[in-house]
Amino acid sequence: MLPKKDIILIKHLVLNKSDEAHKILANLHPADIAEILNEIKNGNKKLFLHMMSSSKAAEVLEELDPADSLQILEEMSEEETIKILENMSVDEIIDLIQEMPTAQAERLLMKLPQEDYEELKELLKMAEDTAGGLMTTDYVYIFSDETVSQAIEDVRQFGQKAETIYYLYVVDNKKHLQGVLSLRELISAPRDKKIHEIMHKKVISVNVDQDQEDVAKIISRYSLLAVPVVDNENRLLGIVTVDDAMEVLEAENTEDIHKMAGITTEEDVILTSTIWGASKKRIFWLIVCLFGDMLSGKVIDGFSHVLESVVAVAFFIPVLMATGGNIGTQSLALAVRGIATEELNRKNIFQFIIGETLAGLQLGIICGALISVISYIWQKNAQLSLAVGLSMCISLMLAALIGVLIPLIFNMFNIDPAVASGPFITTVVDITTLIVYFTFAIYFIDIISPNMVGFARLGLEGVLA
Amino acid sequence: MLPKKDIILIKHLVLNKSDEAHKILANLHPADIAEILNEIKNGNKKLFLHMMSSSKAAEVLEELDPADSLQILEEMSEEETIKILENMSVDEIIDLIQEMPTAQAERLLMKLPQEDYEELKELLKMAEDTAGGLMTTDYVYIFSDETVSQAIEDVRQFGQKAETIYYLYVVDNKKHLQGVLSLRELISAPRDKKIHEIMHKKVISVNVDQDQEDVAKIISRYSLLAVPVVDNENRLLGIVTVDDAMEVLEAENTEDIHKMAGITTEEDVILTSTIWGASKKRIFWLIVCLFGDMLSGKVIDGFSHVLESVVAVAFFIPVLMATGGNIGTQSLALAVRGIATEELNRKNIFQFIIGETLAGLQLGIICGALISVISYIWQKNAQLSLAVGLSMCISLMLAALIGVLIPLIFNMFNIDPAVASGPFITTVVDITTLIVYFTFAIYFIDIISPNMVGFARLGLEGVLA
Repeated sequence: MLPKKDIILIKHLVLNKSDEAHKILANLHPADIAEILNEIKNGNKKLFLHMMSSSKAAEVLEELDPADSLQILEEMSEEETIKILENMSVDEIIDLIQEMPTAQAERLLMKLPQEDYEELKELLKMAEDTAGGLMTTDYVYIFSDETVSQAIEDVRQFGQKAETIYYLYVVDNKKHLQGVLSLRELISAPRDKKIHEIMHKKVISVNVDQDQEDVAKIISRYSLLAVPVVDNENRLLGIVTVDDAMEVLEAENTEDIHKMAGITTEEDVILTSTIWGASKKRIFWLIVCLFGDMLSGKVIDGFSHVLESVVAVAFFIPVLMATGGNIGTQSLALAVRGIATEELNRKNIFQFIIGETLAGLQLGIICGALISVISYIWQKNAQLSLAVGLSMCISLMLAALIGVLIPLIFNMFNIDPAVASGPFITTVVDITTLIVYFTFAIYFIDIISPNMVGFARLGLEGVLA
Repeated sequence: MLPKKDIILIKHLVLNKSDEAHKILANLHPADIAEILNEIKNGNKKLFLHMMSSSKAAEVLEELDPADSLQILEEMSEEETIKILENMSVDEIIDLIQEMPTAQAERLLMKLPQEDYEELKELLKMAEDTAGGLMTTDYVYIFSDETVSQAIEDVRQFGQKAETIYYLYVVDNKKHLQGVLSLRELISAPRDKKIHEIMHKKVISVNVDQDQEDVAKIISRYSLLAVPVVDNENRLLGIVTVDDAMEVLEAENTEDIHKMAGITTEEDVILTSTIWGASKKRIFWLIVCLFGDMLSGKVIDGFSHVLESVVAVAFFIPVLMATGGNIGTQSLALAVRGIATEELNRKNIFQFIIGETLAGLQLGIICGALISVISYIWQKNAQLSLAVGLSMCISLMLAALIGVLIPLIFNMFNIDPAVASGPFITTVVDITTLIVYFTFAIYFIDIISPNMVGFARLGLEGVLA
């Protein structure tokens, strides 16, 4: 979001080691410095970090992708690296260490102060995509039997490195989570009250093993600035803050969009280092659908006598398949998003299914009428036009229904509805559309045989064979 | 997120006006009560609100969709409504009033205290999807020439109704934004210092007319809890808080997914009251693509002598078109999401395009080999298998390239890349794939005429005619 000319100027000043650069960097927000670093050649990035304090450098690295941060740190000496790590927040160090080869990570960890070492070792055991993997241990807790003035003193003393001090989590002497108090409430409370007299006893907390998407949704749902993470005995382990929750939501949205396009990936990186890395996350649905679409070919095979008799029937296969696929994908997008945002619930689900099907029928009538007219102008064959138009109408209605039903059914069986990707829906719709089309074609078009009903049966038997 | 049995129990207690219901509702989070309300018949919803204080009722309504809140308020008396409105935050009242018919809104506004009335009238003038439409005026500001202890007193006094007091915005006596201070810094500063001595002079702020998506991205980028909104003279008008930013990000993500599926909509509602409401947002891309796919028909027409000679060529049209469309959609999803999250930048864009194209080629080789084998087993026609396999290979590479290039080009011209929806990409890919396929078919398959090169030219001329 920095203007491009500012970026160029700052780059220039730093690369020439100008004195002014120190001052400019000190005044820039870490997120902006990170943006400039993304535009700099790898070898030159460390020049930037050398021009600022370790604490500022730590903040800048926290804004970068862990993989990029690691690359910069590898160019620096080990002492420098340790100095910067000591200034980073715990959750960010974890992200970084997870990118390193184990031996290097262990070497670095050993050089950190003993207590940091042990804390980090504990955190590294947590699964990356859970509350435990997301949380930070830089937070403030206060004891339920303290007085307000003792608690304020605690906040003063331990609040410096904490990620947030606006929520104060109250624990007993075994660190069981007892309650919560906002800083606002603490400072306006009488100084001699005990914390347990004024705290909120109902605390929204998450379990350390809970999925990170759930954690983000809870923070969003209850409009929290942070949520405490506890173990199965309700002992306080850390907190997840709202800025991390926002990042998770963005990453999960990316994952949803990718899944809907039939890309199966656990990582949210867009540039993979090898071509096969880019291919392998796409191959699964491609192959599944390839076999599915062979069935479409089988349908055409089953009705090939129709094509042999009236080749113009083939001209409308693409438009029917494509329009059906489009409607199916639209309905899928509405259903997947409705499930994700919880707008679809037990109360309105039938209304949604019926509404979508009727919308599909309405769009089918419009598109069917249009394609009838166009095909008549083009081919001057009234029977063909009738078959094409009616097929469009019926297949669009079916496509809309398929597009909503499949993700809803997946969801019922607790399968992520985004897995019912666009490619999958399109394949199912393609097969349906072709069967509808050829059936109408046989009924309406004078094909060699006069016995039309028999012909339709023949076609369907051909498909099933 | 409440267990279903709790919801049923609470519903039961409230509908029977049990004494216990008061206590349970008082202890429930407003977001949870809102969830229960969503499951209740309209006429019964007001029973819930009657069982709680106006301030709690206000918090519950803030969690509901504005349209749903309005429906409940309409069942209540005007005095009750005004009491609740007085307890709601300004930005939520605005959302509500925008749903009302003008006459009703005016009648309600008139009954509010004079100062609220004028403030609301001002806010109602702001466009809904800008910083001005999103901001609240319930915030705390302090003056730069105050002392720390005066400022603390201000926070105590005015902080009660504020949405956040953790960022204190510093203004001069004409309300120009001068700086910012966190509550944390304020309470740990010496009591006799002047605010301007300790404040941060660099404040990240947004203009009142800035798009709401930009505002949300700034809050996320700089990990803020709130951002101040100023007019063109840098006068402080309000603040946007992080919870509203999260809601905007979710809504914008929904919009992106819908756009990618070719749904054009300004609203984020999933259930529209009329069928035409559901249809009209989808008709645009359907019709555009319908005409596009007629070109695919035209391609088949141009090469119809191939079909007439070897009808089996038609059996592979669906699988080639569908696989190409799938790859194109996958590349589109990667490109659109990469642009949205700013992962794609000037530095890596060419690497991305080349990588995607090579991945397309690699997937083409795999799928091409597979389909060759399958088609040979099925049709026992080596020439046909060769044509199908090579077409798959080339058209998948082209599809991947089209899928990334079109959104990138749109973005270059400042058109929202999500507009280059899946349906549009699929249509372009379909036409390309058919031309590739029939060209190969003519070269490899023994068709009636021995002069194959001439035939290919004939086919392409047919398409262009």
